[in-house]
Amino acid sequence: MTRATRTSPTLANVAAAAGVSRQTVSNVINTPGRVAPETRSRVQAAIETLNYRPNRVARSLRTRTSRLLGYCVQPAPVGMLNPVLDRFVHAITESAAEHGFHVLLFTAPAGAPGLDRYAELLAQQAVDGFVLSDTVVGDPRHGWLTAHGVPFSAFGRTWTGEDQGAWVDVDGAAGIGQAVAHVHAAGHRRIGFLGWPDGSGVGDDRLAGYQAGCRRFGVAPLVVRTDGGIEAGRTAAGGLLDRPDPPSALVCVSDLAAHGALRAVTERGLRPGHDIAITGFDDTPSAALPGIELTSLSQPIEQVGRAVVRMVLGPLGAAGPPTPPAGAAPHQLFEPTLVIRSSSHPKDDGGST
Amino acid sequence: MTRATRTSPTLANVAAAAGVSRQTVSNVINTPGRVAPETRSRVQAAIETLNYRPNRVARSLRTRTSRLLGYCVQPAPVGMLNPVLDRFVHAITESAAEHGFHVLLFTAPAGAPGLDRYAELLAQQAVDGFVLSDTVVGDPRHGWLTAHGVPFSAFGRTWTGEDQGAWVDVDGAAGIGQAVAHVHAAGHRRIGFLGWPDGSGVGDDRLAGYQAGCRRFGVAPLVVRTDGGIEAGRTAAGGLLDRPDPPSALVCVSDLAAHGALRAVTERGLRPGHDIAITGFDDTPSAALPGIELTSLSQPIEQVGRAVVRMVLGPLGAAGPPTPPAGAAPHQLFEPTLVIRSSSHPKDDGGST
Repeated sequence: MTRATRTSPTLANVAAAAGVSRQTVSNVINTPGRVAPETRSRVQAAIETLNYRPNRVARSLRTRTSRLLGYCVQPAPVGMLNPVLDRFVHAITESAAEHGFHVLLFTAPAGAPGLDRYAELLAQQAVDGFVLSDTVVGDPRHGWLTAHGVPFSAFGRTWTGEDQGAWVDVDGAAGIGQAVAHVHAAGHRRIGFLGWPDGSGVGDDRLAGYQAGCRRFGVAPLVVRTDGGIEAGRTAAGGLLDRPDPPSALVCVSDLAAHGALRAVTERGLRPGHDIAITGFDDTPSAALPGIELTSLSQPIEQVGRAVVRMVLGPLGAAGPPTPPAGAAPHQLFEPTLVIRSSSHPKDDGGST
Repeated sequence: MTRATRTSPTLANVAAAAGVSRQTVSNVINTPGRVAPETRSRVQAAIETLNYRPNRVARSLRTRTSRLLGYCVQPAPVGMLNPVLDRFVHAITESAAEHGFHVLLFTAPAGAPGLDRYAELLAQQAVDGFVLSDTVVGDPRHGWLTAHGVPFSAFGRTWTGEDQGAWVDVDGAAGIGQAVAHVHAAGHRRIGFLGWPDGSGVGDDRLAGYQAGCRRFGVAPLVVRTDGGIEAGRTAAGGLLDRPDPPSALVCVSDLAAHGALRAVTERGLRPGHDIAITGFDDTPSAALPGIELTSLSQPIEQVGRAVVRMVLGPLGAAGPPTPPAGAAPHQLFEPTLVIRSSSHPKDDGGST
């Protein structure tokens, strides 16, 4: 690797060659997204011509920042579809780059045992702050990071009602409300809900959206719980379908539960979108597959990623050491979009399977 | 954030408190995966009790390493399923941590324009090396990184036959060979192949595996090309199925192409696994869905991740500045596993749809 030596050109040399101020050169290096593209190109050309090598490590010592945001990647549970987090990682990486930051990935066990990894990274001054996801009820990270004055923001709430720091989330209740309104508008009056067990913040929120929808349209709630997998969804949906008064629409807490419901429906000789309407949540790639064509709620992950990065970088500022956030932490809630496919909307050609 | 001050405890204080050598404390901080869990816990407890803060930045200046590996995340093309890379990112993060490294994520345009981002990170001494994926024929990164003496390793070949540096890959030809052998053993003698257009290294490799399988079993090759999407797969498979002598088995270059083939098959009133066998490649989560149940080839991504990290960290060493690799770069090829489902294997209950 080419390395800086004592005879290396200086930042002042680059500024002179590009005909800009030293501050502008510094901006191109540290916060390129804030410099006009034309200026940035000129400075980058000068950097290349002179073979200028700003030393990020030496700068970190001066400014006491690493310009890195820590993000813990957790493996998707076996058999679960999690394309949402894949998109989220890309979104925060792109957004961080616009502010001159990069994302440092690490792994950690869930819950309190994982806090050691956060502490290690801070102890080493390896990161300036954290972006959290996979937040759960009673998540220990928020309190720990707040107590240590560490800047952070989260994709997802902790559902405790306490101060949770800065967060961005998708409004699951509003999304499920859209799904209920959609099937109600199509004429359905017996609308069932396949939910998760009590106690998961995300699941309880989506259930609340269903209950509010039932109240709004004056239909009786009909709720069954599943553990989240396809097979559990199939069993739970089957129980509803085999009732003497089966629902004609099933609003599901997730695409996985909906895949199970689709299976239960076709096993009984019913046609999704004709005999019964089915909706999911997350708009996973498999929702769009031929033979599946599942109506689902799409999360605006790119917007979530941008917002979460803005929130953690706020207290960090453009340069200099991070400071604890002052005042109430910001929150932002995005509404998902209902993507309507044939599982809830009869097609002209007579069936979706 | 709590920060080191001039009155902070030293590494020697921690060593004394934990009853270990200073080197052991250093190992716990820098390469925790190499320290016995019991010792590591004792040292971490001492670090916590004393509130010791090793300064990663100061250490980076001393050792001239960042202990970070750069990895460029690229967004999956719209509508494409790419759970493979999600698992890969997790695998390299976990493997890097075992060696005391973390992964720095960045984004860059594909091809030569993206090299600027690699150059910036090196100029800033932000990373010690790179892990590459999404390699393509004529990928400019390998030559550039080699010319600059930068340690790197890649998931995927460049298919040029030239020196490509260190790489790990999955043997697509061998995998497709397994699929051909599987359908041949089930009695199929008209075996078609849905491939990608000429010129993609991965697609050409998988086609070569199909052709070798045909030679091995003495069956006539029957190849159609698709652009990789579901709709293209549906059209291409339809063309084969509508021939006067249609194939009774379709080996597909990807799960996406296979989803299209499944659609073409069911549209013609044929039952996958009964009237015709279908296989895919990648074992994406949707392959296992009820109503799909696609036989597919699973890539050993966790093994690939571990191997690729070992390869890039080899020249980097456990500590000290990176050195260019000496001698021939290592290569490693893993064979995928055929996961057999009902799309190629009749079920007892009489059908997969």
